[in-house]
Amino acid sequence: MSTGPAYPSTSTERSASPGPAPAAPAAALFSYVLSLADDALVLGHRLSEWSGRGPTLEEDIALSNLALDLIGQARLCYAYAGEVEGEGRDEDALAYRRDEHGYRNLLLLEQPNGDFAMTMARHLLYAACLDPYFKALSASADPRLAGIGAKAAKEMAYHLRHAAEWVIRLGDGTEESRARTAAALDELWMYTGEMFEMDAGEGVLAAQGIAVDRGSLRPVWEATLARVLAEATLARPADRWMQHGGRAGRHSEHLGRLLTEMQVLHRAHPGASW
Amino acid sequence: MSTGPAYPSTSTERSASPGPAPAAPAAALFSYVLSLADDALVLGHRLSEWSGRGPTLEEDIALSNLALDLIGQARLCYAYAGEVEGEGRDEDALAYRRDEHGYRNLLLLEQPNGDFAMTMARHLLYAACLDPYFKALSASADPRLAGIGAKAAKEMAYHLRHAAEWVIRLGDGTEESRARTAAALDELWMYTGEMFEMDAGEGVLAAQGIAVDRGSLRPVWEATLARVLAEATLARPADRWMQHGGRAGRHSEHLGRLLTEMQVLHRAHPGASW
Repeated sequence: MSTGPAYPSTSTERSASPGPAPAAPAAALFSYVLSLADDALVLGHRLSEWSGRGPTLEEDIALSNLALDLIGQARLCYAYAGEVEGEGRDEDALAYRRDEHGYRNLLLLEQPNGDFAMTMARHLLYAACLDPYFKALSASADPRLAGIGAKAAKEMAYHLRHAAEWVIRLGDGTEESRARTAAALDELWMYTGEMFEMDAGEGVLAAQGIAVDRGSLRPVWEATLARVLAEATLARPADRWMQHGGRAGRHSEHLGRLLTEMQVLHRAHPGASW
Repeated sequence: MSTGPAYPSTSTERSASPGPAPAAPAAALFSYVLSLADDALVLGHRLSEWSGRGPTLEEDIALSNLALDLIGQARLCYAYAGEVEGEGRDEDALAYRRDEHGYRNLLLLEQPNGDFAMTMARHLLYAACLDPYFKALSASADPRLAGIGAKAAKEMAYHLRHAAEWVIRLGDGTEESRARTAAALDELWMYTGEMFEMDAGEGVLAAQGIAVDRGSLRPVWEATLARVLAEATLARPADRWMQHGGRAGRHSEHLGRLLTEMQVLHRAHPGASW
């Protein structure tokens, strides 16, 4: 693993934590923080599509709160990415003014909501990884990322609990809810492999204790799923060929539609043109 | 004003406040609380249509939070209305399973979002009334309504501040933002009269100190608007013939579309059919 040139890190500029962060390659750090931001933005946007459309008033409020957590995580990450990049792009420029191939989010998160079972299955698969991920990130050698990790870890613990409760309720529910949940897990399974991959730059950051080694999280993810699926009386989908490419900007047609909607409306409103 | 038969009130059943609430005609109380709930639900749904589509990430989060406040207010009111009615309808049954003519919301609130200026103009017109409304309701002789009023008053104070800041910023902004905001206020003005009307049943409740005399709020509403519009360098629209009918279930075509979307999705998901 190449360590690359030691660009100065900007990570301590706005941090209250004592001591300097270790030097990180700025391009790799930018790209990595952007991937955290894009994951949160895209899933947050998907969940916000449920706003006003939840199955009950209570769940409508819960889904909106999950979306708000994710958009909040995205803001923190975009703001930091903009500082690392140092070219004057703020959170909105990064969130709204890139083309599809610049987005580094996981393919899993751009998949359409489908029915409520599909949305909750996707959320379980993601939160079962991101809950331990952010816990580990809270010990990052980069104090800004440690702060983001600590805040997000609290949120993702709730997300995981919420999604797990629904998957259990739906899986161990009626024949229809059970069939829908099993089909959702099966359809989404091929997108889960990408959660544990890292490119070379992220690998360098992980070796420096700045990023989290994604591969190391697979056992805890598998254990969480095994526990939840057992209670849901659902089988773990069989392993198969895994889709990937989201991290490299190769997306499904679904992301293009999501971004078109998000960006057209952004351009039509005050942040942009008024 | 007829006082009607003194039906027993159910308002103290789940209240921690000491002392009984005054007797209120249950049918009038149900209808009144339903109108509070429908106002909050319909405007909350409209604002949630902005989720993921705000002009900036920050405003996207703000709009989602405004929507959440309103859906939360709706839940409290529907739950209480269901208890008053005493026929076993819960908050979801009341929110989702009525036909259009059963909805008692103000016509103002079902108007489409239009552009961001229209959304903020509508919100200012409403919050400038509901902020003092809920403050007054927090002194209701009905402890349940007093509790709802106290909670909602804190929220609406923020809503009013947020909407006022935007109207000022847009009105005193570019030529385009100014023109759009002036046009929005002009278009919505005819829906503002209904905010100060009460039917006979609500009049009885107001006379008993349970509801708030809506007419008494007009001076403070006018004063708030005068202050905000002056700072926004916008003129108050001229008075004209006022639309009304929402409180009696006579709605524009916009509500039907909103309810269709809300209800179809509700019926397709677990609260309903799974």
